[in-house]
Amino acid sequence: MDPKLRKSVLRSISNGMYVITTGRGDQAAGATITWMTQCSFEPPLLVAGVRAGSAIHDGLRATMRAVVHVLDESQEDVAKRFFSPADVEADTLNGLTVVETSSGPRLVDAGAWAECAVREMIDCGGDHELVVLEVVDVGAAHEIEPLTVRQSPWQYGG
Amino acid sequence: MDPKLRKSVLRSISNGMYVITTGRGDQAAGATITWMTQCSFEPPLLVAGVRAGSAIHDGLRATMRAVVHVLDESQEDVAKRFFSPADVEADTLNGLTVVETSSGPRLVDAGAWAECAVREMIDCGGDHELVVLEVVDVGAAHEIEPLTVRQSPWQYGG
Repeated sequence: MDPKLRKSVLRSISNGMYVITTGRGDQAAGATITWMTQCSFEPPLLVAGVRAGSAIHDGLRATMRAVVHVLDESQEDVAKRFFSPADVEADTLNGLTVVETSSGPRLVDAGAWAECAVREMIDCGGDHELVVLEVVDVGAAHEIEPLTVRQSPWQYGG
Repeated sequence: MDPKLRKSVLRSISNGMYVITTGRGDQAAGATITWMTQCSFEPPLLVAGVRAGSAIHDGLRATMRAVVHVLDESQEDVAKRFFSPADVEADTLNGLTVVETSSGPRLVDAGAWAECAVREMIDCGGDHELVVLEVVDVGAAHEIEPLTVRQSPWQYGG
């Protein structure tokens, strides 16, 4: 496969941008992810590709819980904050105010979020694992226009 | 969970629109899918949520091969044709000209496509199975502006 063509074709797959968090206190972890889709209506399941060995991967395995935040197109700055390792203060994660939930820290500035139980973490022989998440609760603070990778300054894929 | 809120939050997950095909001759199958993302760089893997028991699901299981076509924003008509069961003629599938490949029928009007080997089909306890696809070849005929679910007249999610 021509590497440039491969990159171009695989980057034409559409993804949104999300912050996924887990854990509590100084065990909290959070990361921006893009490789995620719904994969069942009943029960409501999501599947995310999470890099094996990353802090968020290890956090998800430890807690088997997560909060998925759907970023708004105005929240590129939030995405950027979660490219960095977790920075935990009293009631902030990576500088943003959070509230504790039983699924993990919830960003109070998020427009829409899903609290999830990790059902499975599946090694498919790649450099990311499939994390299967069952949505156990959802919330929304306001209408959002979802941020997509395509409209962001970043790329993840190829 | 409030069903309306659940639908609204889960539909804020961003997806593109793809036609996936498999098989050959009168065993060919094709379907429009939206629940797909990349899930590994090395090897290049995709994962798709495919409804258990659907014709495309059974076709993928039988052949363990697939062609994934990334639809252009001008190709809503192509997406619509593959909401219907496979209709195979001499060199057409659902009325569109195809060429046979070792992975399945390739739509000649597609702007970008990936030929894939099915690595695994995983039952996660939901109404769709996870189909893990290894990209073995890619092709592109012209630049595309990928069609997204959000800009289409349809929804699939919630």
